[in-house]
Amino acid sequence: MTKITARQIAAQTGVSIATVSRTINNNGYVHADVRARIEAAMRDLGYLPNQAARNLATGRTRTVGLVLQTLHSPAFVDMTEAIQMTLREKGYFLLMCNTQFNQQIETDYLRLVQSGMLDGMITNAINDTATEMRQLVQQNYPIVFINRSLTGIEGQPTRTGFVQMDLQHATFLATDYLAGLGHRRIGVITGDMQLSTQQRRLGGYREALQARGLEFDPLLVQAVAVNRNEATRDGQLTPKNANALHEATVQATGEFLTAMPDVSALIVIYHTMLPGVLQAIRQVGRRVPDDLSLVAFSDFPMAPFLDPPLTVVAQPSTEMGHKAADMLVALIEQPAQPAQHVLLRPELIVRQSCKPYP
Amino acid sequence: MTKITARQIAAQTGVSIATVSRTINNNGYVHADVRARIEAAMRDLGYLPNQAARNLATGRTRTVGLVLQTLHSPAFVDMTEAIQMTLREKGYFLLMCNTQFNQQIETDYLRLVQSGMLDGMITNAINDTATEMRQLVQQNYPIVFINRSLTGIEGQPTRTGFVQMDLQHATFLATDYLAGLGHRRIGVITGDMQLSTQQRRLGGYREALQARGLEFDPLLVQAVAVNRNEATRDGQLTPKNANALHEATVQATGEFLTAMPDVSALIVIYHTMLPGVLQAIRQVGRRVPDDLSLVAFSDFPMAPFLDPPLTVVAQPSTEMGHKAADMLVALIEQPAQPAQHVLLRPELIVRQSCKPYP
Repeated sequence: MTKITARQIAAQTGVSIATVSRTINNNGYVHADVRARIEAAMRDLGYLPNQAARNLATGRTRTVGLVLQTLHSPAFVDMTEAIQMTLREKGYFLLMCNTQFNQQIETDYLRLVQSGMLDGMITNAINDTATEMRQLVQQNYPIVFINRSLTGIEGQPTRTGFVQMDLQHATFLATDYLAGLGHRRIGVITGDMQLSTQQRRLGGYREALQARGLEFDPLLVQAVAVNRNEATRDGQLTPKNANALHEATVQATGEFLTAMPDVSALIVIYHTMLPGVLQAIRQVGRRVPDDLSLVAFSDFPMAPFLDPPLTVVAQPSTEMGHKAADMLVALIEQPAQPAQHVLLRPELIVRQSCKPYP
Repeated sequence: MTKITARQIAAQTGVSIATVSRTINNNGYVHADVRARIEAAMRDLGYLPNQAARNLATGRTRTVGLVLQTLHSPAFVDMTEAIQMTLREKGYFLLMCNTQFNQQIETDYLRLVQSGMLDGMITNAINDTATEMRQLVQQNYPIVFINRSLTGIEGQPTRTGFVQMDLQHATFLATDYLAGLGHRRIGVITGDMQLSTQQRRLGGYREALQARGLEFDPLLVQAVAVNRNEATRDGQLTPKNANALHEATVQATGEFLTAMPDVSALIVIYHTMLPGVLQAIRQVGRRVPDDLSLVAFSDFPMAPFLDPPLTVVAQPSTEMGHKAADMLVALIEQPAQPAQHVLLRPELIVRQSCKPYP
């Protein structure tokens, strides 16, 4: 196939080469009708699209990936929108790599950076300690971790950034607030204990208990986890893991509350589990806040309109998204340097889902 | 730059060409350490990444765009996750093109198909009747519209598909239910009246009123719209349009309820407006369902836990997402044919936010 030039397109459409060039590079005004004619000629003549040619020339795609487990969390939605808006301002695009909690899908998406399809990645990967992730970092691919940490890379020149909410302080805030209301047996409904974040989350819980002179009882921490290797599509329609997570949450929370009648307060670490927890509370016949105080992560637009209005620990998700995108673009466009860290503070928003211990 | 071959990578790393090939093409087992060495050599030698090369050779990127106004809608989240999962099974990737209700951003994203960066697009674009959109369709780019229609292409060979919920039936269901409870003055809080979907949505409202012998009063339809050309980032942090929409909703709904004291029931067409509507109802001192019955679109996990549990018209969002992705891939991989249409039925889910008219 002969290489088609702007000159040939100009000849075919009867406009100037400058106009063709403005159309191809999408800079400067071109009348819509003229643009349409030029683009039709580009297609007719088989002109190599600008974007593919530019990617080939620069070795960049100006596309980055966002690896998240789910979008069924308003904090993740805020973050995702902020990331995309910031990337757009900087001339980058966002490829969505939603894993539905499936480890294999996650690993597949991580490979896209190595395949050259992505210039970098923002991730809150569940297999954050896995070999694949460590390799990506060691091979100097630009990666920004959200609410994740990675040991063993301190002081090394990498292209790695970390944007975190202070997870330890977040659970501290929730626990301290409940303990201050007189609650002594404070349950925690949380996720997969393999996650590197669990240590910090539970650290804040233990720290607050200790400060109030309360003992840590591991039986008060209820983990809900789904099989990370399960199929992700049930028949034609249902994302199986999301349903599995909901059902597992209802069951685990129900059993927990039944087995632990002295638990008078509950902290729910993941928003994705909140509907399941609320359903379980109803099923076992407890009422919030009269029979059970409740603090959830994170804030969401409907929280003030729940029955009762929900007390939450809010995450600065939008700010985290902007910072993660800013950081990733800097890592892509600048040489390797020591890992960058941003730590943002959570905030307790008191509504009406907690009461003093009777 | 000399072209680097698999042979040179094999020589540099001391493994077989077959192993290099398995690594490059990502098929078949390669030990993680070996893979890392090969990938390092690929980078050292400047091997053209597989994906870029393949894109160049095929003229395809195996990436499609999803143009949505926002993700702050559980129905859009369900749809997005379903689209991505289905695309993944078919070997395609999803580029997120969230417009934050901004028309210019939307137009920019539409251009990505023409630029060759995307193989096709799924969209619920707001400027669905605009020249750019019509051009894309006429130029035979594969496009699937969600809850949108496009006139003037009937019978023409295109690569266009339409996945719609029956919007007319959806508002019919809500209106008929409320009218059946004895409500005579049923308000509608809806969005931008320029949207092509408004006619069908209001058509269902009028149809139900007529069937019950009630008169249509245009004053009962309250549109809330934001400026489509506003900046999208307020300072560093806030997506301006989302906030603007919320504030506009609170104000418009408050004024509407104050000006129309005889309105005893309300239908909220967009989930993004629901928090604003609930806030306005509180501010004007009405109580749901005692002083005001409420039906909202669409269903969401927290709806059963609102105060009161919310009656909704549910949209088959996950199914719509799967169908849209299936349809788009078929349009990409097959020649032009008459536009395809899928129409799915909504469902009324009765909870406790409506009462009979006293």
